[in-house]
Amino acid sequence: MCGIIGIENNKNASTLVSAGLVTLQHRGEESAGITINGKYGMQTFKAMGLVSRIFGEEISYDKLVGSSAIGHVRYTTSSNSSLINAQPFQINCIHGNIAIAHNGNITNFLKIKESLLKKGAIFSHTSDTEILLHLIAMSKGCIQTVIENSVRKLQGAFSLVILKDETLIGVRDENGFRPLVLGKVKDSYILASESSAIEVIGGKYIRDICPGEIIIIKNGKIQNSFIYKKNKKQNTCIFEQVYFSRADSLVFEQTIKAARVKMGEYLAEQMKNIKADIVMPVPDTGYFAALGFSRASGIIFENGFIRNHYVGRSFIKPSQNLRALVAELKLRPISDVVTGKEIILIDDSIVRGTTSKVLINSLRKTGAKKIHFALSCPPIISSCYYGIDTPKKENLIAANNTIENIKKHLNVDSLTFLSLQNLVNSCCANSINKNIFCTACLTGKYPTKISNNLSHESGSI
Amino acid sequence: MCGIIGIENNKNASTLVSAGLVTLQHRGEESAGITINGKYGMQTFKAMGLVSRIFGEEISYDKLVGSSAIGHVRYTTSSNSSLINAQPFQINCIHGNIAIAHNGNITNFLKIKESLLKKGAIFSHTSDTEILLHLIAMSKGCIQTVIENSVRKLQGAFSLVILKDETLIGVRDENGFRPLVLGKVKDSYILASESSAIEVIGGKYIRDICPGEIIIIKNGKIQNSFIYKKNKKQNTCIFEQVYFSRADSLVFEQTIKAARVKMGEYLAEQMKNIKADIVMPVPDTGYFAALGFSRASGIIFENGFIRNHYVGRSFIKPSQNLRALVAELKLRPISDVVTGKEIILIDDSIVRGTTSKVLINSLRKTGAKKIHFALSCPPIISSCYYGIDTPKKENLIAANNTIENIKKHLNVDSLTFLSLQNLVNSCCANSINKNIFCTACLTGKYPTKISNNLSHESGSI
Amino acid sequence: MCGIIGIENNKNASTLVSAGLVTLQHRGEESAGITINGKYGMQTFKAMGLVSRIFGEEISYDKLVGSSAIGHVRYTTSSNSSLINAQPFQINCIHGNIAIAHNGNITNFLKIKESLLKKGAIFSHTSDTEILLHLIAMSKGCIQTVIENSVRKLQGAFSLVILKDETLIGVRDENGFRPLVLGKVKDSYILASESSAIEVIGGKYIRDICPGEIIIIKNGKIQNSFIYKKNKKQNTCIFEQVYFSRADSLVFEQTIKAARVKMGEYLAEQMKNIKADIVMPVPDTGYFAALGFSRASGIIFENGFIRNHYVGRSFIKPSQNLRALVAELKLRPISDVVTGKEIILIDDSIVRGTTSKVLINSLRKTGAKKIHFALSCPPIISSCYYGIDTPKKENLIAANNTIENIKKHLNVDSLTFLSLQNLVNSCCANSINKNIFCTACLTGKYPTKISNNLSHESGSI
Amino acid sequence: MCGIIGIENNKNASTLVSAGLVTLQHRGEESAGITINGKYGMQTFKAMGLVSRIFGEEISYDKLVGSSAIGHVRYTTSSNSSLINAQPFQINCIHGNIAIAHNGNITNFLKIKESLLKKGAIFSHTSDTEILLHLIAMSKGCIQTVIENSVRKLQGAFSLVILKDETLIGVRDENGFRPLVLGKVKDSYILASESSAIEVIGGKYIRDICPGEIIIIKNGKIQNSFIYKKNKKQNTCIFEQVYFSRADSLVFEQTIKAARVKMGEYLAEQMKNIKADIVMPVPDTGYFAALGFSRASGIIFENGFIRNHYVGRSFIKPSQNLRALVAELKLRPISDVVTGKEIILIDDSIVRGTTSKVLINSLRKTGAKKIHFALSCPPIISSCYYGIDTPKKENLIAANNTIENIKKHLNVDSLTFLSLQNLVNSCCANSINKNIFCTACLTGKYPTKISNNLSHESGSI
Repeated sequence: MCGIIGIENNKNASTLVSAGLVTLQHRGEESAGITINGKYGMQTFKAMGLVSRIFGEEISYDKLVGSSAIGHVRYTTSSNSSLINAQPFQINCIHGNIAIAHNGNITNFLKIKESLLKKGAIFSHTSDTEILLHLIAMSKGCIQTVIENSVRKLQGAFSLVILKDETLIGVRDENGFRPLVLGKVKDSYILASESSAIEVIGGKYIRDICPGEIIIIKNGKIQNSFIYKKNKKQNTCIFEQVYFSRADSLVFEQTIKAARVKMGEYLAEQMKNIKADIVMPVPDTGYFAALGFSRASGIIFENGFIRNHYVGRSFIKPSQNLRALVAELKLRPISDVVTGKEIILIDDSIVRGTTSKVLINSLRKTGAKKIHFALSCPPIISSCYYGIDTPKKENLIAANNTIENIKKHLNVDSLTFLSLQNLVNSCCANSINKNIFCTACLTGKYPTKISNNLSHESGSI
Repeated sequence: MCGIIGIENNKNASTLVSAGLVTLQHRGEESAGITINGKYGMQTFKAMGLVSRIFGEEISYDKLVGSSAIGHVRYTTSSNSSLINAQPFQINCIHGNIAIAHNGNITNFLKIKESLLKKGAIFSHTSDTEILLHLIAMSKGCIQTVIENSVRKLQGAFSLVILKDETLIGVRDENGFRPLVLGKVKDSYILASESSAIEVIGGKYIRDICPGEIIIIKNGKIQNSFIYKKNKKQNTCIFEQVYFSRADSLVFEQTIKAARVKMGEYLAEQMKNIKADIVMPVPDTGYFAALGFSRASGIIFENGFIRNHYVGRSFIKPSQNLRALVAELKLRPISDVVTGKEIILIDDSIVRGTTSKVLINSLRKTGAKKIHFALSCPPIISSCYYGIDTPKKENLIAANNTIENIKKHLNVDSLTFLSLQNLVNSCCANSINKNIFCTACLTGKYPTKISNNLSHESGSI
Repeated sequence: MCGIIGIENNKNASTLVSAGLVTLQHRGEESAGITINGKYGMQTFKAMGLVSRIFGEEISYDKLVGSSAIGHVRYTTSSNSSLINAQPFQINCIHGNIAIAHNGNITNFLKIKESLLKKGAIFSHTSDTEILLHLIAMSKGCIQTVIENSVRKLQGAFSLVILKDETLIGVRDENGFRPLVLGKVKDSYILASESSAIEVIGGKYIRDICPGEIIIIKNGKIQNSFIYKKNKKQNTCIFEQVYFSRADSLVFEQTIKAARVKMGEYLAEQMKNIKADIVMPVPDTGYFAALGFSRASGIIFENGFIRNHYVGRSFIKPSQNLRALVAELKLRPISDVVTGKEIILIDDSIVRGTTSKVLINSLRKTGAKKIHFALSCPPIISSCYYGIDTPKKENLIAANNTIENIKKHLNVDSLTFLSLQNLVNSCCANSINKNIFCTACLTGKYPTKISNNLSHESGSI
Repeated sequence: MCGIIGIENNKNASTLVSAGLVTLQHRGEESAGITINGKYGMQTFKAMGLVSRIFGEEISYDKLVGSSAIGHVRYTTSSNSSLINAQPFQINCIHGNIAIAHNGNITNFLKIKESLLKKGAIFSHTSDTEILLHLIAMSKGCIQTVIENSVRKLQGAFSLVILKDETLIGVRDENGFRPLVLGKVKDSYILASESSAIEVIGGKYIRDICPGEIIIIKNGKIQNSFIYKKNKKQNTCIFEQVYFSRADSLVFEQTIKAARVKMGEYLAEQMKNIKADIVMPVPDTGYFAALGFSRASGIIFENGFIRNHYVGRSFIKPSQNLRALVAELKLRPISDVVTGKEIILIDDSIVRGTTSKVLINSLRKTGAKKIHFALSCPPIISSCYYGIDTPKKENLIAANNTIENIKKHLNVDSLTFLSLQNLVNSCCANSINKNIFCTACLTGKYPTKISNNLSHESGSI
C-alpha cells in the first residue's frame, strides 16, 4: 500500500503536497518523499518515517521551492524496506528530468525486467516501479506518447502521478485496481489517492481518474485526457472500502464512512437472531460498522476499549510473561462496559487472527459473558497481487481453517462474516453497476493472469 | 498535571512502572522519569518527551535494575519547562537516598521557601516540590515521622509517591485534591494516580488512598497507614472526571466513562426542547457524553469528524492563509454526516474558546444547517491553584463574557453548559455523599486560603 | 578527491575496509560507504559524515557480513553534495550485482552521457561515475571483457575498485592520474588509494597498479592482470605529493614524508640569501617541508602555532567583529616563539590566499618582525580536470596576480615558490624517470584534450 | 581535571565564554556548560560532549543572552560521570541566584558533607563541589563575606569562578594547586584556567590569581581583591606544565612550550652518552621536549608517527586479533623514518605504561634498530588528591616496579626519566623562587594532610 499525490501551478506546492501526504499517511508509514520542480530544477527529498517528522523537521520547507510537486508515502513489511526504495523516483533521461510516484504492484515486473536487463538496463532499487523508468527512457516521442507507450506494457495494479518539468500526469491501470482522483484548488489541479487529501487542502473533488486513463495537466489546464487501454470491466479493490481508505474519502458517490455503516447494517440483518446487550467495535477499524449495526439492530452501541496512542513501536520487548501487558497497553477493556455482558464485537476483517485472539481473550478476562464476533468482510482466503501486503496464503487463517475452527480458535460464541453480496451492496450507492470490484482476496478469482512466479511469492515484491 | 506511580517488591519494577507511565501519559507528555532502587543503589533516569521514546529507546531497561521504583510524567506549559524540573527528584540527605514524585501544587510554597532560604537551603529547581525535599532533610526521626512532619507543613494539592531504599510511601493531601490509588499485583503493592495504570499491568485496584493519609509499604506488606491530618470535608478535583482521567479509571465506584455518559444524559435532559438530526462529539473529549446524550434523547449518534493522529507538533508553521489547513489536518468533518444537518455538538468544556471556534467554523463550511453546542461542564470562571494548568482568569472566555456573547463569538445556534448539580450527580454512584468535590474553577470558591501572591499569578508555578 | 579501497577473501572484510577508509579519510570527509558481498547477497551502506561516526555507530558491523568488500570516502564542495551521490554505487544488471567506487574525474562524461541518453539510459545521480555503470550493463561477455570494453571508452582520471560477487577488480586510467596500489594481508589481496591504508590493517604494499592496467582478484589469487590501454607517458598527479596523500604513504620508492622534506631542502637552497631566526610550518600542511628547510639551512625549526582540533564546523557563525576569533581558535601563535622574530613560514601551496592572509596577519599581531613566506609548490595557475577540486581559474590568486602583488596582498617580506624542477626532483627517488607527472595545475599543460565545456566549467562536475 | 572561565560586562559574554571553553577543551572533554546572567535572569545550559557540538548546534546562542557568564568543561573517568554532575552548578539561595564552576578536588569533602547532612542539607549530585553551595547558602553577610567564610572551610585544591548577578568572583586555594589567571578584553575582565583562553578571545593576560586570593569584579572594575588565607608556601601542580596545560599558555613568565623545550634540553644533558640517529616525539605530548632534546644534543629531530584525528571513540570494538589495528589507526610509524634507525623516543610521562608499550612495539615492527625511551618527567609513584585523575597507586607502573623492570616490560634499550631537579628548573624562568611546586605524584610528599578515607580511594571522587 502506498499513497500518492501531485499538484501543479501552485506556489504552495510543497506545503500542500506534504499536508496531503499527512492525510494519506494511513496508506503507508514507512517512508515519505516529495519531488518538487522549481527554480533549482527538479529535486527529490525523502526519508524513513512519518511525513510530519520529515518535512518541517528534518527537511526544511525552505528547500522545497517550486510550483509543481508530487509526493509519496510508502508502506512495506518486506525485508528490502529501506531508503533506497522510498519514492518518488527521480531520473534524468533523454526526455529530461522525470519523477514518478506509484501505488500498486506490477505483475509482469520480472518478465519486463529480464528483457530490460538484456538491453543493458541497470537497476538501482528492488522496487517494481523502476521498470517503468526504463520503459519511459527507452521510448521515443513527446511525453504523452512516451507515457502511453510505456504504461501499455505494464500489467497489474498501478495508479501513478508523474512530474515532467511543470507538467503533472496521472495514470490509472485499465482495471482501476487502486484509486486515483482529480480535484482542484483555486487555479491548480490535484491528483491524489483519496478525495480527503484534496479536500483537506481546501480543494474540491472533481471525479475519479477512469480505469485505463491518462491525464496531462499544465499551467492550471487539463491539456489532454484519454483512455489508453480499455478493459472489459472495472476491477476496483473492494478492500479499500473495508479497511484502507480514510472514512471521509468519497468513493462511488458516497463516503467510505457511509459504506462502512451499511456493512454494519447488513451484518445486523445477517445476525438478527443473535441477542446481545451491546455492540462494540474494535477501535478504530470496526467503528462505523458497529454504529451501523447498532442502528439497524437497536442494540446499544458502546465503546468498550480504551486505545492508547502513546505506545511506540519499540516500546518494551517483553519477556514471555509480560507479552499480554503490551497488548493491554494498546487496547484495554473498560470494566463496567464489558463485565457480565453479552457482546457483539465488530471488526473489519481477520487476516492471521492473532490480534483478534488477544483482544477477545482480554474481554473474557474482564468478564464478558458472551462474545459474538462479526466481521464487515467475508473471509480472506487468497493473497493480493495488486498492491496490498496480505501475507502468503499459508498464513491466512481463513484459507486454512473452517469457520467453525476459527470460532473455536478465537474462543467466541459465534462468528459471522459479512456476505460478499452484502459487502458489494454496501460499497456503492444504488444507481451504480455493482460488477466493478476486484474481490480476488475473498474469492480467489483474479481479474488478470498471475504468473506462477508471483503466485508462489508473497504479494509484495 | 502530572501522573505518578510506584511499585515495590517486584523484579520487573522498571518495566511495570514504565508501562504504568504509558497508561498515565495523558496526564503529562513533556517529560518522564523513573527512580529505581537496586544493586547499583538508587538511580534516577529522566528525559524530555514521551515515555515510550525514552525508556527502551534512549534509556535501556538493562540499566533499570531493581525491585522497587517510582515514576513520573510531567505536563507543563510554563516557560520553565526543562529537564531540570523533570521528576522524580532524587536526593542524598541525613536519612540516606530519597526520591519523590509529586502530582499537584503546593500553595504555601513561597512562604515555606522563604523560611527555608533563611535557614540556608539551596534550590536547584523552579519546582514547588523541592521544598518538601528540604523539609524531609531537616526533619528528625524515623522515615515515617520525617514524612509526617514534613507533609504536615504543606498546604495545597499533593499526591506523592516516595521511595526510600526498598520502602514505598504514598501521601495524599487532606483535601484529596489529586487522585492516588492503591493496588496489588502478585506480591507487590502499587500506588498510582489512576486505577487503569494498576490494571494495565495485571494488578487489582484495592482502594483510594484517603485524603490526609500516609501509607508505608515494604516487602509486599503494608507496614503502616494512618490519617496524619483530618479535613472537615474532602475536596476532590471534579475536573479529573470531566476531562483529565482515563475513561477506564475507577472513581467513586464507577468508571470515568460511566460518569461521562451520565453527564451526556443530564445534558440531554437540559436540552430536551432542542430538536436535531444528530448528536456528535468533538473527538475524543466529547465522546462518552455524546453517547449518553444520544441514548437519553434518542437522537442518532454520529462521528462527524476524522481525527488524524499523524499530525506532529512542529508540522507546518503556516503562513496566514494556510492556518485553517492545519486545523483541518487534525480534525476534518465527514461531509455526508454534516451537510444539511442540525447538529448537537458535544465537548467537555470551553477554556479559551479558540479550538471550539475553529471546529464550529469547519462544520459551517461543510454545510451544517444548525449547530447546538453543549458542554459536559459548567463555565470555567476561575483559575486552578491545585495542579491544573488553567490559564489566568483574563484568558478564560467564560470569566469575561456572558453566555450570550460566547454563543455569538462561536457562531452557534444554541450554547448549553451542564449545570453544576448535574455534573456533581454524574460524578459518583448514588450512595455516596456528594459534597466531596472541589469545584473552585467553576464557582470561584476555593477550599483553602489562596495567598495574594498566587491569585495574581497563573495557576502554574 | 576521493579515497577507495577493496579487499577480498577475508572474513573481517567490513572491519578492514572501514579501518582503511579511516586511514583515507583525509581524501574525503563528506560521505562514506561500504559495499559488502556475503550471505545476504550484495549490500551497500552509506551515509553523510565521517567513517568513524557512520560505521560502528550509525550502522552496526553486525549488518556488514561477508568476505569481500569495497569502500569509498567522498570529498566535494559542489552544490550537488548529498547522500544520493555517495559511493559505492551498487546496481543489478545483466551481469548480476556490481558495485563500483571511483576516484577521479571522467572528462568525456557529458559526451558519453549524451549517447547513453539516446540509447534510453536513465540517470539517478549527478555523478560522472554513473556512465560507467551503463557502459558495463550494455557490454557483452565475461566480466573481464565487460570491464575492459567499458573503461576503454572513458577519458580522464579514474582509479576504480569494482566488486562482482566475490571478485575484486582494480582499474587505473592510462595516464595514471590518481594513485591505486596493491597489497596483501594474509590470504587476502587489497586495493587502495594509498599504501598506508594497506599497512595500517597489517598488510604489505606490493606494487602500484600500472597506468592502463586492469587487475582481477578472487579467492586470494590474482586471476589476471594486463594493460588494456597504453599511453605514451605516465601523468601522475604531482599535487598528491605536495598536499593530498598521507605522509606515510609510499610513492615512487619513498614516503610522501621524504618527498616533502626534500621540497623543504630545495626551498632552502632557493632562499639561501634570506636570513631568519626560525623556520616554522603552517600546521600540519607545511610541517615536513619546514623540517627539510631547517635541516638544509641550519635555521632553527620551531612550531609557532597551536592547532585546536576541537573546533567544529558549525561552531560560532560569528558576527563581523568576531571573525578573527574563529581563525585564532583554530591556529594560534605561541607568543614567545613569534614575538620579535624574523620568520620563514612554510606552507604547501596558495590557492585563493585567504587562509594565508589570516595566519600572516595573526603572526604580525603577535609581534613577528619579518615574515618570509615560502611554498613547497609553484604557483597554481590552472584548474584541475582530473579529480582535484581546485576552484575556477578566476578564483586562483596566482592565476590573476603577479608574485609581487600577492606578496603585497599577503603583507609578507618575501614570497618564494618552489620551482617546478625542484618539485619534480623532490617527488621521486633518483633512479626514476622524472617525466611522469601531470603538472597541469602549475603549467596549464593538460596531458589530455579538455572539452570546451569542461574548461568553462569548474573542475568538479 | 576541568577547565573554567568567566567574563563580565560584555555583550558577547556567551560567545566569548564558549570560545574560551573550546580553548580549554583539552582540560575536559566529557561535558560542557555555561551559566549566563541576562534579561531572562540567570540560566544554565549544559550537556555531555564537546563544546563545539553543544553550543551553536544543540543549544542556540540566541538563548544565551547576557553580559556576564561563566563556563566549565569537565573530565572524568569515574562511574558517576553523567549530566547531573556537569557544571556550572546554579542555585537559588538566601543570597539570590549563584552559579559556580570548580577545578580541583576538595579533600575534606566527606567531613564537611557529614556535618552538612546533620544540618539538614540535601545533595543532588555526587560532586564535591556541592558542599560549597551549601556553605554559601548557610553563610550570612554580603557576598564577599559569604564567599570568604565558605571557602575558608575548604581544604584541598580549588580554583573557582562564581557568578552572582552581574558580579564575577574568582577564588584560588591557599596552595594554588590549580591555575587561575586574570585578563582583560576591552572593558571586560576575564578569569580563566589558562592564559591562552584569554588571549584567544582577544584579551590580554594580566596576572595569576594568587594562592589564597579572592577577587571580586563588576561592571568592568575590580571591586576588591585580597588574600583570605595565607600558606607557608605555594604548591602549584607541576604536572600542569608537564602535560595538562596548552603549550601557548603563560606560567611563571614563560609559555608552557618554553618549559617543555627546556625539559627536553635537560633530558639531552642527562642522556649525553647515548648515541642515536634521530630523536622523535610521541605525538603530540612529547613534541616540544623532543624539539628541545634535538637542539641541545644536535641529534636530528624527526616526526616518525602519523596521527589520525578521525578515529572516533566508539570506532571498532575489536575482536582480540584486531586490537593492534586500533592502535595503528591512531598512531602509525613512517617506515623510512624508523626502519633501521637508533631512535630516542620522547614522551611526557608513563602512567600505566600500556600506551607506551603499544607504540614501542609498533616501532619495533617497523624495523627500529634501537629505542631509547625518555620521559620529560620523573616516575609517577603516587596518586593525586588535588584534581588530577591519576589511577590508584596499584595501577601506577612506576609505583610498583623498578626502572629496570619497566625497561624490560616496555622492551626498550634504555629508559630515562627527567630528574625532579631538572623538571623544576624547566618550569619557571630563572628569577623565580623554585620552591613553589606540588610534586606529590612524583615524591609522595603531599603538601596537605590526606584523610585515610581519601588515600584508600582513587584521587577522583
